[in-house]
Amino acid sequence: GYGRFGASYDSSKSGDDSKSWIEQRLRFNIDALTTTDGGVEFGGRLRLQYDNRDTAAGRTTNTAPALFYVSYGGLRVEVGNVNTAIDSDPLIYNSEIGITERSFGDPRSNFWTYNSGSYGTDNRSGIYAKYSIAGFTAQASYIDPDQVSDAHPGADLRSEQSVAFSYETGPLTVSTAATWNGAGKKSNTVWYAGAAYQFVEEFTAGLNYIDEGYDGTRNGADYSDLGKTITLYGTYTIDAVSLTGYIANNDADDNKSDTVYGLGAAYDLGGGTKLLGSIERGYGSKSSDTSEETIAQLGVKFNF
Amino acid sequence: GYGRFGASYDSSKSGDDSKSWIEQRLRFNIDALTTTDGGVEFGGRLRLQYDNRDTAAGRTTNTAPALFYVSYGGLRVEVGNVNTAIDSDPLIYNSEIGITERSFGDPRSNFWTYNSGSYGTDNRSGIYAKYSIAGFTAQASYIDPDQVSDAHPGADLRSEQSVAFSYETGPLTVSTAATWNGAGKKSNTVWYAGAAYQFVEEFTAGLNYIDEGYDGTRNGADYSDLGKTITLYGTYTIDAVSLTGYIANNDADDNKSDTVYGLGAAYDLGGGTKLLGSIERGYGSKSSDTSEETIAQLGVKFNF
Amino acid sequence: GYGRFGASYDSSKSGDDSKSWIEQRLRFNIDALTTTDGGVEFGGRLRLQYDNRDTAAGRTTNTAPALFYVSYGGLRVEVGNVNTAIDSDPLIYNSEIGITERSFGDPRSNFWTYNSGSYGTDNRSGIYAKYSIAGFTAQASYIDPDQVSDAHPGADLRSEQSVAFSYETGPLTVSTAATWNGAGKKSNTVWYAGAAYQFVEEFTAGLNYIDEGYDGTRNGADYSDLGKTITLYGTYTIDAVSLTGYIANNDADDNKSDTVYGLGAAYDLGGGTKLLGSIERGYGSKSSDTSEETIAQLGVKFNF
Repeated sequence: GYGRFGASYDSSKSGDDSKSWIEQRLRFNIDALTTTDGGVEFGGRLRLQYDNRDTAAGRTTNTAPALFYVSYGGLRVEVGNVNTAIDSDPLIYNSEIGITERSFGDPRSNFWTYNSGSYGTDNRSGIYAKYSIAGFTAQASYIDPDQVSDAHPGADLRSEQSVAFSYETGPLTVSTAATWNGAGKKSNTVWYAGAAYQFVEEFTAGLNYIDEGYDGTRNGADYSDLGKTITLYGTYTIDAVSLTGYIANNDADDNKSDTVYGLGAAYDLGGGTKLLGSIERGYGSKSSDTSEETIAQLGVKFNF
Repeated sequence: GYGRFGASYDSSKSGDDSKSWIEQRLRFNIDALTTTDGGVEFGGRLRLQYDNRDTAAGRTTNTAPALFYVSYGGLRVEVGNVNTAIDSDPLIYNSEIGITERSFGDPRSNFWTYNSGSYGTDNRSGIYAKYSIAGFTAQASYIDPDQVSDAHPGADLRSEQSVAFSYETGPLTVSTAATWNGAGKKSNTVWYAGAAYQFVEEFTAGLNYIDEGYDGTRNGADYSDLGKTITLYGTYTIDAVSLTGYIANNDADDNKSDTVYGLGAAYDLGGGTKLLGSIERGYGSKSSDTSEETIAQLGVKFNF
Repeated sequence: GYGRFGASYDSSKSGDDSKSWIEQRLRFNIDALTTTDGGVEFGGRLRLQYDNRDTAAGRTTNTAPALFYVSYGGLRVEVGNVNTAIDSDPLIYNSEIGITERSFGDPRSNFWTYNSGSYGTDNRSGIYAKYSIAGFTAQASYIDPDQVSDAHPGADLRSEQSVAFSYETGPLTVSTAATWNGAGKKSNTVWYAGAAYQFVEEFTAGLNYIDEGYDGTRNGADYSDLGKTITLYGTYTIDAVSLTGYIANNDADDNKSDTVYGLGAAYDLGGGTKLLGSIERGYGSKSSDTSEETIAQLGVKFNF
């Protein structure tokens, strides 16, 4: 697991909400595994996590539903609170910076991921499979929002499907992924393709393209197409210092500006500890009349 | 602890409820103990458990109230969230099969056990003692539904008492147990006696007799005597494969059929991992007009 | 962590509330830390705790919000669910006895401490720093009741500040501490000074003085000045047995008696296990017409 804490600033907060606060997350993964005589590995994971951003379950450390896995050779199958294919793509989050590892160049769409807290009222369950061979990795996931009941009070939830493929050869990595009915919303489809190239040992750059899904309700007044996102990013590393910058363009109607950018720095203190600083400028929002937000963070992340 | 997952089928589910689902449980026992200079062991246990069947506390991993124990020689005393005597009988659950370790030949009555989740609104607390000497084991438990307040809103809860005695000599094990005010319900009395005999190294068979308690409210319209249960079971083991079958008879008025049976198979994969399959046929219910249900399971259980 | 359990008696309980019960607490601290190349230690702590006195979160084991710390040489800085300065004073709780480590000579005032359970609805966060050099220790803490929002529904909560200073030289320890806006209540100020002296190896005695804060609402009908508390205590240890006695005087108007006293005995069983007994007599309360209460405890505490 890891811990992270530091100062966080968001210019878009207003009214009673503070623009700055102490960002905090402490994550413990409790893993258990055993190996059969035939070399098949069976395992399970629980997670205990405190995050100051969690509002559910009364402001304390939350537990996560269980993830089970079977692993043999290059194949890994997960059951329960599984990872999803698009969320496990090796390049899709490569432009992230700062202590909370975020980026305006990330996908803006809704889709499910491994769930660090309670499911809420759903009896959610998923299956995920990953197969790797000779630099090539294929992933697929299927999430049933309620595996016991077909009655979803107040929500027309669908099963989410996702696939991802990636290939790594020398300095080049390419990947593509897609999700259908993202986060259980009908016809909420996300397409993604990306590539990264390590030009020299110190410098890697990449490009991501995302055909986003939608926000709000599909046929509702709050429906909002999230457009297409193109993100260019690069990371330059010298000794213990690493600089990451990105610029991204998204054409959603709700944006006040279509172009966003960010710059992050990481200083490796050793022992799995990094000092992280970042500053980013966002899209703003016409519908909520929010100017292009500035987000800045400075803090520490330590792994254990 | 252990993990278990697999396919589960129950023909009695209807309407919005799915007849099949992925069964999931992940259990971590967190134990702590210390030994005094005089050789007395003091210990405590917390449990973290995710079970897809849990509906309380919002579909996530739950914590259990604490169990404390003192152990010296053949004596063990537990305080708090204790085991109960009848639930700790060595033979009473011997006909269980499948990944969820269940059987229609189990007691049908309500009584308390170690509680894997929250107590709810009760301030429950118990005491349990176990003494073993020369093949003979005596157990007793006392559970106070609310040790702080005598006011139990909406429930006339009583203290539950339970005792169990067992004796093991060579291939023969015999045991008997009883519970009064099972699960805190007045006059909900359960009597049990059983025996198991290991005929050859590969084959063990046994017989359990249970004079069950009641369901519903004691003087209410929903009162239902749970009758008497007789369960005959046998387990045949050869190499890594183990087959368990049972046939049981219960004479409760609400049964559509009085005879139930089940067959289970276990394949030991090594490393504490077992592949488990089972199929069972149940009693059905006249009051809820449910036919004799078929329950089938296929999955894996791994210990760690 | 530790476990403790035993019999507890409180003569002031009445009506439906039982005067005696089985006291129970099981505490697991889950710590993680890493050290940078420069020798700075970064760490985090989660706590899992069951306590029969907890009423929140449905009678089960609770999780605590995360505490983060950075430590280097004699300096330690905490962020998040931090310790507070006055609560970390080395002498302020020295008169405590029994399995729940309590005393009528403790401060009666409200102030925040490390929180073993959920914050409730608040987004609380604090900072704490401690610096030790050559027998001298300075501590300071600042707790923001809601670092994100300034709107505190139904409560006029303030930030709590606290400082503590202590000095240890040979057999003598002196300390002083103060808290402003204790527990977020405006003008709820607590002053404290104390000293302890080890007369011989077997006997230590000390004196604490506390100018308490208030109870109830500041300008409300339920306002109650908690007065001044003077506590004299002494501990006599011989071999495995330790006896602690205290006598304290408090002049709050609501007291039926202004003088309280207690006597406790501890027997060290080895292996971090102690047998603890105590008996105390309290202040009583005019407003709730409660006589001077007698509190008695007998039980075991074991560390692990």
